[in-house]
Amino acid sequence: MQLGIVGLGRMGGNIFRRLSNAGHTCIGFDVDAAARGALDKDGLGTVASLQELVNALTPPRAIWIMLPAGQITEDAIQSLGNMLEPDDVIIDGGNTFYKDDIRRARELAAKQIHYVDCGTSGGVWGLERGYCLMIGGPADAVHRLDPIFSVLAPGMGEIARTPKREGDARAEQGYIHAGPAGAGHFVKMVHNGVEYGLMQAYAEGFDILSNKDSAELPEDERFTLNLADIAEVWRRGSVISSWLLDLSAAALAQDPQLDGFSGYVEDSGEGRWTVQAAIEEAVPAEVLTSALYARYRSRRDTTFADKMLSAMRLGFGGHIEKRVGGQTVLTPDAPAPRDVGD
Amino acid sequence: MQLGIVGLGRMGGNIFRRLSNAGHTCIGFDVDAAARGALDKDGLGTVASLQELVNALTPPRAIWIMLPAGQITEDAIQSLGNMLEPDDVIIDGGNTFYKDDIRRARELAAKQIHYVDCGTSGGVWGLERGYCLMIGGPADAVHRLDPIFSVLAPGMGEIARTPKREGDARAEQGYIHAGPAGAGHFVKMVHNGVEYGLMQAYAEGFDILSNKDSAELPEDERFTLNLADIAEVWRRGSVISSWLLDLSAAALAQDPQLDGFSGYVEDSGEGRWTVQAAIEEAVPAEVLTSALYARYRSRRDTTFADKMLSAMRLGFGGHIEKRVGGQTVLTPDAPAPRDVGD
Repeated sequence: MQLGIVGLGRMGGNIFRRLSNAGHTCIGFDVDAAARGALDKDGLGTVASLQELVNALTPPRAIWIMLPAGQITEDAIQSLGNMLEPDDVIIDGGNTFYKDDIRRARELAAKQIHYVDCGTSGGVWGLERGYCLMIGGPADAVHRLDPIFSVLAPGMGEIARTPKREGDARAEQGYIHAGPAGAGHFVKMVHNGVEYGLMQAYAEGFDILSNKDSAELPEDERFTLNLADIAEVWRRGSVISSWLLDLSAAALAQDPQLDGFSGYVEDSGEGRWTVQAAIEEAVPAEVLTSALYARYRSRRDTTFADKMLSAMRLGFGGHIEKRVGGQTVLTPDAPAPRDVGD
Repeated sequence: MQLGIVGLGRMGGNIFRRLSNAGHTCIGFDVDAAARGALDKDGLGTVASLQELVNALTPPRAIWIMLPAGQITEDAIQSLGNMLEPDDVIIDGGNTFYKDDIRRARELAAKQIHYVDCGTSGGVWGLERGYCLMIGGPADAVHRLDPIFSVLAPGMGEIARTPKREGDARAEQGYIHAGPAGAGHFVKMVHNGVEYGLMQAYAEGFDILSNKDSAELPEDERFTLNLADIAEVWRRGSVISSWLLDLSAAALAQDPQLDGFSGYVEDSGEGRWTVQAAIEEAVPAEVLTSALYARYRSRRDTTFADKMLSAMRLGFGGHIEKRVGGQTVLTPDAPAPRDVGD
């Protein structure tokens, strides 16, 4: 079928290619001429404006938005809302906050334009591996787009051993209609929140391994743990094997000390929303929250809280702590840190 | 080669069978006659005492201990230490604390008996899928046992797409010689600590999904999330696909509300040791610690800390909180919880 795609970056470009490879007719638009050019040179069709895209598509139109979450996506959808006709459908494939989906669906429904939110996981590997799709929106519109979703999803080939189960057969192919508008992005949001927790669990484990110091032992009893080998062996038959561990093993094989990384870790916003959802529901989500806070901490050399601790330690014990080149030193006339108080 | 196996429960019995299937000659011992009988009826050899086992094996002997961690394992090894001869080797395949391995290796080395610790992951699936093995001990003894380890490990078949890497080729077959005595169980200990974190991350995500309440929305906008379908779709092409998620999906497909479980969660001790290692190393392992504490919390209806909070709330706000049938109720003349203080 025919699909317009807005946003031809890594995700949008790969979605375009995966659909084209399967025989669908895509027309792409990106404000960046270079992004358009990358598809043009492979003989794939792009246009230079949203209006051209709308004009080029045959009603009822389907347009997939694959832009960074936030104002850019919002602007594109508002513009399309003014250009499209009744029974056209907009799919937001980005990482939108699910409450924005619910609002947009209502606004567009007033114009009889359908709105579908599609949480899309798979990153840069999706072109080859397929995307895991979590879809929200009205059943008719979602059903109409089934030829698109079924091609973008990994299909049945991905996992050899599937337990027999009742339920939505699409789930076994890698996509689900999770519910009405917002349900797709809600499920994707929790997915990403879980991802933060999983990543942090592995990260802390490797931290403990890398900091293992057995200098107190005789030389022939000392540990010199090889993290790349450990990551590799955990991939094989262990309870903690996973795709994230596969990526971790590949990274450690290439750069065992991870010298190529600063340790500054961004967050996409979905971890925050997951914790907000937990708070709204009064669900204790300590691991997902800790994983989010660990990222915040990673961006600071020190925190005001750390200074508060030092200030209190100075107050009761006369400790003056200064960090010099990553080392904590005490002023010459201050007592050693363990002498007075703690 | 020939191997004695002490402990013929689920793990030990399956190790016996996997080795026998591959042509190794195993002789098993278990204090439980029923455990011995299960192997005897399949024509696999067992004996009725440790001394018989030692007598039946040809020196230099190799004996694999697969008993519950703690005193039972310690007693078996102490006994064997008095029965075995120089150049015999004891393998502890259980979940022993790595500092006990270091002590035992020293004690046995005085008698020229080799001690190998082997962290063994794979659970009840190991017979079919193979075990991920993390091995510590002297290189000669570990090398001598290679025919055993290479058969117990999953081998190269398990993962189709392996990134090219330099390093210990055994890691790609599912076993590593991690270092001297204790190194195997140290790596297995951190493995289990990570496992706690991963499990808790998924668990909290499904908790947030299951508690999503959209009762405030119009009926056609409400979410009714199908957790079994969500777990199934996440297995396909998503960033959070893993073996633990495979198990979670199978469980939710069978029992969507998990009514068959009480919610009381045990810990094997390895999560505790992982947190202790983090504390010794001064590594901030908040996710692994939270995951452990979540298990502790799961075993209590309420905590003394919860009562302390209520006592303070009573003190400043006059709140009297009682839980009746899982619901918190206030005494009739107490103010509503949000009226005074917080």
